[in-house]
Amino acid sequence: MSTFSIGVDLGGTNLRIAAVDENGKIIEKITTGTEVSRGRDTVIFEMCTAIQELTTKFRSSAGHLAGIGVGVPGIIEMSSGMVRQSPNLPGWEDYPVREEVERRLGAKVVLENDANSAALGEKWLGAAANVDDMCMITLGTGVGGGLVLQGRVWHGMTGMAGELGHITADPNGPPCGCGSQGCLEQYASATAVKRMAIEAVANGSAPELGRAMNEEPEFSSKVVYQMAIQGDEPAKKIFHTVGKALGIVLADLVNIFNLPMYVIGGGVSSAWEAFAPVMLEETRKNSFVYRATAPTHNVPGVAGNKIHDDSLPSRRTTIITQALLGSDAGLIGAARLPMIAVNDLLPEPQLKRA
Amino acid sequence: MSTFSIGVDLGGTNLRIAAVDENGKIIEKITTGTEVSRGRDTVIFEMCTAIQELTTKFRSSAGHLAGIGVGVPGIIEMSSGMVRQSPNLPGWEDYPVREEVERRLGAKVVLENDANSAALGEKWLGAAANVDDMCMITLGTGVGGGLVLQGRVWHGMTGMAGELGHITADPNGPPCGCGSQGCLEQYASATAVKRMAIEAVANGSAPELGRAMNEEPEFSSKVVYQMAIQGDEPAKKIFHTVGKALGIVLADLVNIFNLPMYVIGGGVSSAWEAFAPVMLEETRKNSFVYRATAPTHNVPGVAGNKIHDDSLPSRRTTIITQALLGSDAGLIGAARLPMIAVNDLLPEPQLKRA
Repeated sequence: MSTFSIGVDLGGTNLRIAAVDENGKIIEKITTGTEVSRGRDTVIFEMCTAIQELTTKFRSSAGHLAGIGVGVPGIIEMSSGMVRQSPNLPGWEDYPVREEVERRLGAKVVLENDANSAALGEKWLGAAANVDDMCMITLGTGVGGGLVLQGRVWHGMTGMAGELGHITADPNGPPCGCGSQGCLEQYASATAVKRMAIEAVANGSAPELGRAMNEEPEFSSKVVYQMAIQGDEPAKKIFHTVGKALGIVLADLVNIFNLPMYVIGGGVSSAWEAFAPVMLEETRKNSFVYRATAPTHNVPGVAGNKIHDDSLPSRRTTIITQALLGSDAGLIGAARLPMIAVNDLLPEPQLKRA
Repeated sequence: MSTFSIGVDLGGTNLRIAAVDENGKIIEKITTGTEVSRGRDTVIFEMCTAIQELTTKFRSSAGHLAGIGVGVPGIIEMSSGMVRQSPNLPGWEDYPVREEVERRLGAKVVLENDANSAALGEKWLGAAANVDDMCMITLGTGVGGGLVLQGRVWHGMTGMAGELGHITADPNGPPCGCGSQGCLEQYASATAVKRMAIEAVANGSAPELGRAMNEEPEFSSKVVYQMAIQGDEPAKKIFHTVGKALGIVLADLVNIFNLPMYVIGGGVSSAWEAFAPVMLEETRKNSFVYRATAPTHNVPGVAGNKIHDDSLPSRRTTIITQALLGSDAGLIGAARLPMIAVNDLLPEPQLKRA
């Protein structure tokens, strides 16, 4: 008998719920206008209503419900299914989310950090479908990260592993909300791209960006990207900064892990053409491990299209590539969670009692 | 019947061979004057002679020989037992070391990177004896690293993982032999400490260090450390730089892995008192993951003595501590290698054939 599951992406702006079949095909997707700011109880109520709608609809045609996976922008304690830290979800901390949703719906629920969910999605059906070990960096409002080692998400001792957005790109860089400075997030998030554009306009070096800022009511990192591909030098320079910071951090990650695959996802990753050449050049310059393992045909900007080719030069190649599932990665990864057996999850590393 | 094994530490300056019992006790140690510069064949001959001497001597009293583990300063391909890259061992690259030593001695041989061996040693009997997951940074002539995840060394796709000495501490820092700049190795190795002392003397800011440099025929990082603990400000400043760079990189590693234990070993780690306070302060400042998990009683400089105490505040604490086995870590870890079943080694992560 076939099975399906429900994936939930609890984003900062809206809530998306999808029924996904065992092959990863999205059968139906509900995007609610539910703003997380309306509070925990409203969000949980609307989430449960949407899940019930989908499960009722597909229970007969799509088979057995494997469970519900929820991607959450915060630090999850896997053992208790609680949100331990989430600046974007006030009121959710230390609330028994998993227990509450399981009680309401009578189905297995698995919580996971959103970047980890996206990594699982890309590993299941996206850019990393051919590897067991991968590292994902998601460039969104912030910068998140997910590590999949030996096919399983690496959670660390307290579920806080994979905070790749807070690797130091420059110890003398801009202050970061985490308390450090020069974190990757300060260079490669949508927020950082916008901040750098505002700074460039303020110091008078970016007249075109200034004009766009005045004209566009919703000036965003996307506008900066559009101007960069149209050849605006200050906009291009911003994405060079994005690429350089990513290259420094990727070089670190390649030197640390020596993995076959590093995937760049999240909204800003659509600006791949604007930052990837500098990023790959910087990674090459900074990592002798990358130089020893980089694909010989690695043409910046198209590297991502080559990984499923038969032209794959060797099984010992470091691929740095764009994510393939776009904004669905987290949703698909969340749906994957209940399909993975619980005992397949790595135990959290911790001190043994002496 | 009891077993013993032979550990070999193929250092840059000399060759050390030890017979180690199944509890990790060194039964006998041979330190040869063999300089690696005398060439591969001489080194292998003397190594095999010393191993034979030890195995003959202890075969009856210490039981069955489990095998021979060799720690090598270079990149090892675990599957073939070959040295793939080693700037310090000219002529060893792509030579079948394991096969050759096995042929000569008729015993199982396991090669391993020297920093990985040291990590295994500390994990077996040293600072990390109570954890399954740890990260070791060795501060020697260069800076090496070893990662133990779920009890096993993480080798990466081509045996190049754990190059922690080449994590960027400052992208605008001094050039590194690896092609990058501002690598941890440029701040925290014995070579870097000596270089910073020479720089301080050259710019006239360190008169006492200058005097020591003229008086001591073998001026080394140890002399700088001695002067630092005697209160010489320029010498103290150098170890502050060591601590700051280590703190930046440790914050990265804590944010990436969220492990229970990070161990600092190698010769320069004996200067713990001179660099650890700044290192821990910098890690705390830069890593919110560390702040969330640091031991509450973490007194800089004595943190390392607390881990075996009953006072351990929680099983979810990030310990950053000094290595306990000193220069024997690599030797003991190497001896451990043949005791670990081969099938206990993680397969190397790589692309699956589509």
